[in-house]
Amino acid sequence: MIEELVSDMQNLPLVLGVDIGGTQIRAAVLRGATLLSRVRLLTGEDSTPDRVIPRICVAIQQALTEAGIELEQVRGIGVGSAGQLDSRTGVIFSAQNLLGWDHVPLRDELKRTFINTPLYVENDANVAALGEYLLGAGRGCSNIVYLTISTGIGGGIVIDGQLLRGVSGTAGELGHMTIDWRGGRCTCGNNGCLEYLASGTAIARCANEAIAAGQGAELLAFVQTLGKHNAIDARIVGQAAEAGVPLARSIITQAAEALGAGMVNIIHIFNPERIILGGGVTKIGPMFLETAAQIVNTCAIPVPRQAVQIVQAQLGEDAGLIGAGALIYLNENEREGIYSGVGH
Amino acid sequence: MIEELVSDMQNLPLVLGVDIGGTQIRAAVLRGATLLSRVRLLTGEDSTPDRVIPRICVAIQQALTEAGIELEQVRGIGVGSAGQLDSRTGVIFSAQNLLGWDHVPLRDELKRTFINTPLYVENDANVAALGEYLLGAGRGCSNIVYLTISTGIGGGIVIDGQLLRGVSGTAGELGHMTIDWRGGRCTCGNNGCLEYLASGTAIARCANEAIAAGQGAELLAFVQTLGKHNAIDARIVGQAAEAGVPLARSIITQAAEALGAGMVNIIHIFNPERIILGGGVTKIGPMFLETAAQIVNTCAIPVPRQAVQIVQAQLGEDAGLIGAGALIYLNENEREGIYSGVGH
Repeated sequence: MIEELVSDMQNLPLVLGVDIGGTQIRAAVLRGATLLSRVRLLTGEDSTPDRVIPRICVAIQQALTEAGIELEQVRGIGVGSAGQLDSRTGVIFSAQNLLGWDHVPLRDELKRTFINTPLYVENDANVAALGEYLLGAGRGCSNIVYLTISTGIGGGIVIDGQLLRGVSGTAGELGHMTIDWRGGRCTCGNNGCLEYLASGTAIARCANEAIAAGQGAELLAFVQTLGKHNAIDARIVGQAAEAGVPLARSIITQAAEALGAGMVNIIHIFNPERIILGGGVTKIGPMFLETAAQIVNTCAIPVPRQAVQIVQAQLGEDAGLIGAGALIYLNENEREGIYSGVGH
Repeated sequence: MIEELVSDMQNLPLVLGVDIGGTQIRAAVLRGATLLSRVRLLTGEDSTPDRVIPRICVAIQQALTEAGIELEQVRGIGVGSAGQLDSRTGVIFSAQNLLGWDHVPLRDELKRTFINTPLYVENDANVAALGEYLLGAGRGCSNIVYLTISTGIGGGIVIDGQLLRGVSGTAGELGHMTIDWRGGRCTCGNNGCLEYLASGTAIARCANEAIAAGQGAELLAFVQTLGKHNAIDARIVGQAAEAGVPLARSIITQAAEALGAGMVNIIHIFNPERIILGGGVTKIGPMFLETAAQIVNTCAIPVPRQAVQIVQAQLGEDAGLIGAGALIYLNENEREGIYSGVGH
């Protein structure tokens, strides 16, 4: 059992985790959830594969050097990447914020440098879900659904210890679940997606639309009291809502109710043991998650509602790195399961 | 592999399948998808557990007698039941249309009569999904999602040969996925569920509401041409839509678009190999499924959309019986997997 494998954290093998985002590449040597080194490189303005892939290799080497170990001492390299990809082949179909990433065989490219090291590529939300499941807020559970709510909304689903990947490796796009089929157009081409209604981008869009329509005087006055001249983002709208600004309260309420409706769907579809909520928007003030929980209590079918715990993610901003490293534990367990007949 | 287990249909062991619905109990002796006997008993007006459970036992005995075999010759009894239940314990939490079915330990009750026979209880949509996966429209696939659209909408999900059951056994309630979070109240207590918008009940409700609002003259005239004095149901609305009655076309279009939105969600969440559509509403005319497919083509993310086939169920009205019998194949495979170390 993989749960047994990771229960003794001291004895976990060393692994290397890489987290590729739109603006930076991060890499770390890890033992379970413990980082032995931490490297951060900017992807740079030219984020084409030809420029970014060599920088990933540099980040990996720096992480090894900083931890004072050789490549042979890590059991494998796990890569979490933004964008849509097929984890079985390690091919990235597309990645918003990275230029020209169209069907890039990332695993094969990295394998040219790290020939003899096991190497796995998985999308960033799945990686974070796996990290939380094995080493964070999902420890001890069999079935969890992870939602990360930040600029966009991503999802990762673990069922009986396995990531739900689907036939092309793109399963778990919970942010692109319609909850408002006649609603506004999402960036993905679908209408009324959860991401369109409950993400940080959605909250900021609603605030800026209200301001443009001349309804933002009180919100703008609140922003001035902060003494900053920042653009209106979800965090500021959250602060204003907690301070009682009516427009902000109404925007946060709407986004939270959308999140609640999305969680009701997750509860009805997956009947999970836990829903784990991560991402910056979950931290914009208690009102957001409290309102979402009220919708769950009102709308979800009793048996699966009573079975689920809604909890906050535990791994914080290192979730991507820790989860990327955990890909090695997952895959080693799958391989060993086949060899030893243990199954899962 | 369970696929190998069922690939040689001639050599499959005999099993007994039972299908418990709101109005009737059906039972059959089966070898794979082949019925060797078929029994149908009405649940009767008094559908309390005390009356229905003995009738289930009678139906099982009659199915054996009709097939000319003894109980010892079947490898097990699989029961598919309407309602919410926990398949691990065989307890039925609740069943619409069956009186007083509140936390009924159906498996334990049946075990009192069939002491030494392996006995499994599963909800009817999961059972039909399993039947289609192993013996019908899902043969050869690894991941399928089954949707049955009739009075209500049920779902069953098979991932890598396993039914998605969730932590209390209630996973797969795809009919109670919100696609219209500000929409009308569904019988389940949630708002704007797929079932509320795309089921046979929804189609009939929309037609009857339009008639009550005085907009139904052309539809009523069409019904008269059928020479019947039936209540307006989904089948009649479907016929009227195919015949070009504008109100009926608009109602069918709306229900089909809702189904399409639901399938987009399924594609984004599960990235399945096939979506298998069953239930009477899928047969009310080509317009319904064609319109739903158009929504999928317009709104779904390209990679998972190109990976999915949307197909009609193959097992017809025997899906419940065949799938109930298939529970034995699934569970035998799981048990043997543990004993032999094969895994799945």
